[in-house]
Amino acid sequence: MKSGKVLIAQGGGPTAVINQSLVGAVLEAQRYAQVDRIYGAVHGVRGIVDENFMDLSMETAGNLERVAAMPSSALGSTRDKPDRAYCAEMFKVLKAHDIRSFFYCGGNDSSDTVRIVKEFADEANYEFTAMHIPKTIDNDLMANDHTPGFPSAAKFVACAFAGVNMDNRALPGVYVGVVMGRHAGFLTGAAAMARVFADDGPHLIYVPERTFDMNTFLADVKSTYDKYGRCIVAVSEGVHDAEGTPIVTKLQENVERDAHGNVQLSGTGALADLLCDEIKAKLGIKRVRGDTFGYLQRSFLGIVSEVDAREAREVGQKAVQEALRHNASGTITIKRVGNYASAYELANVKEVAALTKVMADNFITTASNDVTADFIHYLRPLLGSNPLEHAARLMAPMVEKILHK
Amino acid sequence: MKSGKVLIAQGGGPTAVINQSLVGAVLEAQRYAQVDRIYGAVHGVRGIVDENFMDLSMETAGNLERVAAMPSSALGSTRDKPDRAYCAEMFKVLKAHDIRSFFYCGGNDSSDTVRIVKEFADEANYEFTAMHIPKTIDNDLMANDHTPGFPSAAKFVACAFAGVNMDNRALPGVYVGVVMGRHAGFLTGAAAMARVFADDGPHLIYVPERTFDMNTFLADVKSTYDKYGRCIVAVSEGVHDAEGTPIVTKLQENVERDAHGNVQLSGTGALADLLCDEIKAKLGIKRVRGDTFGYLQRSFLGIVSEVDAREAREVGQKAVQEALRHNASGTITIKRVGNYASAYELANVKEVAALTKVMADNFITTASNDVTADFIHYLRPLLGSNPLEHAARLMAPMVEKILHK
Repeated sequence: MKSGKVLIAQGGGPTAVINQSLVGAVLEAQRYAQVDRIYGAVHGVRGIVDENFMDLSMETAGNLERVAAMPSSALGSTRDKPDRAYCAEMFKVLKAHDIRSFFYCGGNDSSDTVRIVKEFADEANYEFTAMHIPKTIDNDLMANDHTPGFPSAAKFVACAFAGVNMDNRALPGVYVGVVMGRHAGFLTGAAAMARVFADDGPHLIYVPERTFDMNTFLADVKSTYDKYGRCIVAVSEGVHDAEGTPIVTKLQENVERDAHGNVQLSGTGALADLLCDEIKAKLGIKRVRGDTFGYLQRSFLGIVSEVDAREAREVGQKAVQEALRHNASGTITIKRVGNYASAYELANVKEVAALTKVMADNFITTASNDVTADFIHYLRPLLGSNPLEHAARLMAPMVEKILHK
Repeated sequence: MKSGKVLIAQGGGPTAVINQSLVGAVLEAQRYAQVDRIYGAVHGVRGIVDENFMDLSMETAGNLERVAAMPSSALGSTRDKPDRAYCAEMFKVLKAHDIRSFFYCGGNDSSDTVRIVKEFADEANYEFTAMHIPKTIDNDLMANDHTPGFPSAAKFVACAFAGVNMDNRALPGVYVGVVMGRHAGFLTGAAAMARVFADDGPHLIYVPERTFDMNTFLADVKSTYDKYGRCIVAVSEGVHDAEGTPIVTKLQENVERDAHGNVQLSGTGALADLLCDEIKAKLGIKRVRGDTFGYLQRSFLGIVSEVDAREAREVGQKAVQEALRHNASGTITIKRVGNYASAYELANVKEVAALTKVMADNFITTASNDVTADFIHYLRPLLGSNPLEHAARLMAPMVEKILHK
């Protein structure tokens, strides 16, 4: 890298480990003599356009380490999805501040922004590197075995369903838990990690990779309930009918849409309530409860996969190494190179930009109402320490009846 | 205690540490020569009437310890609220099995059951002790400084709002989190533990001890949003208007009621959605999100207060000691005898039965939209290790603007 400044930004939905990537990048960048200052853009690309930079060179190492352990984006985030004009504004600001290396931690939209800004720099013959650092709890980035943020969110979902399963055993009924995931069902599938004993829930898992049919769903719930006297369902917020219409829109009169025309799925309990109402009405089951995990699952304080935290730190470090030692631009991807071992590879952002990875067919059962052993095998090592390692239930024999023989 | 059997049961809503009380009682009971067998009733009082007992004498110590660490009621629970006829049936079964000491872990309803069963035994001149072991995440038992289960649920709520606060700082807007609590606001008040920095949320806390007025609420949200550009609200599911009508019933056409005529408050996202809709409609704020914490807060696997776990274990032990060494019947209460130290005292169940403790006036601000420093002082030592001990945010100075001077 030419002598100058480094800029780091965070975009999109926060995760539990996105600050590990930030701090990994900052600490690595401090090692290079040609790095004049390390800036952080406040609220992602919006902070670049508005020229809102923090001078991260003035952070203490101790505070950086503490920030690394905090959930959510410490620099602030944005939902802005820059077009070319927006990126042109960004480039003007980058140039004005003599920023020679730009790191953007985010999902597939963010990787596209990195690509466009780099194009502006190249056209202007401005010596510049631009790197995308992956993150998303949705786990939907192409070219990656998995993405930082997903394993910790998955661990939260597993812990939640583990508790819900035991709660539901104590007070039986039907429980519907709605998990984030518009197009990809990885996070919802993580609910399966809550199972230890043969009759443990979740008993049914529905992901957006498959069409959701209400009648099939009700039949699934009924047969589970008939078998176990209870039924726990994990369902992605993005489940949709054969036409692709989200199930939640079938209930709500006024659906909220974002700048991209997407229906608001999180931050409302509508889908869980709709499914519970259907179960009560059609199956006549009395105790039916629904929870929408909402924002808790992506930024909960205290549930982090150690593997995720380590990898998030390392993709930040690797991004800086590639840019500052090899003058590279692109994205860092996580590859699985053992069971379990991972490696980081530089890739072209085109491999991830504007693309969405969904669950492989061998991760979903043919009945489309559960995940497979292949998926469990894929996910298990990503969660780090196993919250269910010491799972137990009472195993004592029943006492012979005296009065009700 | 006369030579015979011991019976233990768990009732009402599960908690994260109710199995500590179970295991504390079982392990203590094993020490007494006059204890023939230790039974566990499956699904609380329902399991007694139905004569469904497990022989806990046949549990291994290792499995008991593992069960103690699991959330939710390992013996199963029930919502049955026994009347005298029901208690008479229970007594028949207890007598048939030569049960001479009965322990029921539950809330205030459960303590009343203990009292009635003991009365039947006394009338029949049947040598018998009956003890209530306290538990409830609502923290609403009279005569107790606090109740086992509450501190762990409070820790979950604190961790959730800590994450939500950081998430909301990254992507500002209004967030409404609905917390369990029909009559008592202790658990909702625990959200305040998420605050470290001066502008941290939750910024507003509403509890059922005070009347909820929609216009005042909207004015509170507006002034907070105007000040910080964001606003996080914690609200009890049981908030109600001046007539005592739950706010949630104002939205729903078909409200579900339980056997006691209580409106179903948990297991639906209705209240959060209603409040969010009001904020959007009346204040014109776009990004408004609501979550209902639902069942996650009472049985989540992995979030436990060490103080709570220890005390839950000890109230189980103390109950057995009082019954088996002193031939006592009653309830074990937790008293605060230092900052922080607690002691356990035997009390008459009439001190807790059919009564509900609510937050003291000095725990709620005069504006009725927050908790006080007194409440923080009360709650802090109960949570054990502080999840926000190392809370941090970036502290670096802003960089001087070049283009947008």
